[in-house]
Amino acid sequence: MRLTRAHLFSVCDIAATGLFAVEGAMVAARAGLDLFGILVIAFVSSLVGGITRDLLLGDTPPASLRRATYPILALVAAVTVAIGFHVIESVPRLVLVVPDAAGLGLFAVLGVTKALDFKVIPVAAVLLGTVSAVGGGVVRDVLLDQVPGILREDIYALAAAAGAITTVLALRAGAPRGWAMTMGFAVCFALRLASVLLGWQLPRLQ
Amino acid sequence: MRLTRAHLFSVCDIAATGLFAVEGAMVAARAGLDLFGILVIAFVSSLVGGITRDLLLGDTPPASLRRATYPILALVAAVTVAIGFHVIESVPRLVLVVPDAAGLGLFAVLGVTKALDFKVIPVAAVLLGTVSAVGGGVVRDVLLDQVPGILREDIYALAAAAGAITTVLALRAGAPRGWAMTMGFAVCFALRLASVLLGWQLPRLQ
Amino acid sequence: MRLTRAHLFSVCDIAATGLFAVEGAMVAARAGLDLFGILVIAFVSSLVGGITRDLLLGDTPPASLRRATYPILALVAAVTVAIGFHVIESVPRLVLVVPDAAGLGLFAVLGVTKALDFKVIPVAAVLLGTVSAVGGGVVRDVLLDQVPGILREDIYALAAAAGAITTVLALRAGAPRGWAMTMGFAVCFALRLASVLLGWQLPRLQ
Repeated sequence: MRLTRAHLFSVCDIAATGLFAVEGAMVAARAGLDLFGILVIAFVSSLVGGITRDLLLGDTPPASLRRATYPILALVAAVTVAIGFHVIESVPRLVLVVPDAAGLGLFAVLGVTKALDFKVIPVAAVLLGTVSAVGGGVVRDVLLDQVPGILREDIYALAAAAGAITTVLALRAGAPRGWAMTMGFAVCFALRLASVLLGWQLPRLQ
Repeated sequence: MRLTRAHLFSVCDIAATGLFAVEGAMVAARAGLDLFGILVIAFVSSLVGGITRDLLLGDTPPASLRRATYPILALVAAVTVAIGFHVIESVPRLVLVVPDAAGLGLFAVLGVTKALDFKVIPVAAVLLGTVSAVGGGVVRDVLLDQVPGILREDIYALAAAAGAITTVLALRAGAPRGWAMTMGFAVCFALRLASVLLGWQLPRLQ
Repeated sequence: MRLTRAHLFSVCDIAATGLFAVEGAMVAARAGLDLFGILVIAFVSSLVGGITRDLLLGDTPPASLRRATYPILALVAAVTVAIGFHVIESVPRLVLVVPDAAGLGLFAVLGVTKALDFKVIPVAAVLLGTVSAVGGGVVRDVLLDQVPGILREDIYALAAAAGAITTVLALRAGAPRGWAMTMGFAVCFALRLASVLLGWQLPRLQ
């Protein structure tokens, strides 16, 4: 069996989903939720972005509810955190930024290309790519009664949007799909890491 | 006219909807909202769980917006609370747990069977049954700027999930629909009541 | 080219969308968000009400994601606020109530007629008209971790509902569509302004 591009996408998607689920479960555990609450937040963090995208595209039931893989990933993430909370907590935050930036870029690029497949206009596709990438984190923060990090902090949703825009522009310029997605991913990943390492911030009005 | 099972489902559904609407209206009144705010929260508490389920199933417009019964129930609940607030408030909380647990079980079981009718996978059906049962309360708490009770407190959403899982397993084992639903309802109801009466809690990580 | 009624609707819709986007951007700027956060809140404030209406009607992708006009309006609004924040901030709040009441009435009336076109029942159409008008503001407030203004304050969502009800009743009484919409708009606009100017409040239960 040859590793086709479809296989690669699936692997990336599953990796990013599992990663976001673990991150969500860690946030929930730190907030003092019980085991079931941790499971709920793992679900929300990893699946709500893609579910929102699919609802807006009219692709129902959402992809993540048509295969058992995705809900099971959230379950595995919650169990992993329940067992390994203190081990994961001891990893320096800066190290965790790398896989998170990778997940962000993957979701943004997969989201924008799925939206384009559904024939929405490019501006809307960029919006949906960004929502795929950051939607789960936003709803997680709302449920935990916090202003979503993406509204307060540095360059996070902007990196996802930049990655989605790059993919759209590359496709328009005639790049093959795989290359356009790789370029979008690279832009998002690099912009996110640079903003954390270099402390970049967008200006405020007051 | 004979009382068929479809009638019985309708009666149960309407009873559970009215009950959740009254509960929501009471929470809104306690939070100091005005009469229109109480009406909005009654709507949200009783209808948003089922609406979310129907959106995810692609069954639009949602069932509760296709019959006037449901919105009118929320209106009646808001008026009931506006007139009888102090009477209902004087009922001991522990007594109110019984009808709430019944509503929880009904929504979970009706939700999971509707999802199965739409041919989603069993894991997703359990998720949608749970969302049917607890979704309204979650959005109500978010609107009132509180961390949703189901994330902080004892066994509530878990009881709904257990009821939905029971129904799925019973159907798989070949039980007739009515029995599978009754068993799911009983598991949810008993687990919820036991957890309140015996003070059961799920473990936390810190 | 003659100015047809369809043109007039489009102009009104675009004016109301731009207005709600500017208002949302101002709220976000006052809350200390960065430029991207201001853009996100401008999007949410102006588009989420209509998107929610379209999701519930099953009209996907939502109208505001099928034409670039709407997302671009939100972008223009965010840039306008970034440049002219202090100018807009110096306008007395009472003056801003007038365009806001106009936007509220427009969204309510456009929302309820679209819902009726999709053959939902009148009660649900009124609900969807109200959601069109106030949904964006509710989600904006939730994201900024505030109890939505419509739940705490005076007559806002109620004015939208009154406008939607008026339109439905006028259509039922045989009024032509244009007149029914104008009457609904007038009721919403007048009720909202009167409630602000005269300090009307709905009663609370405690």
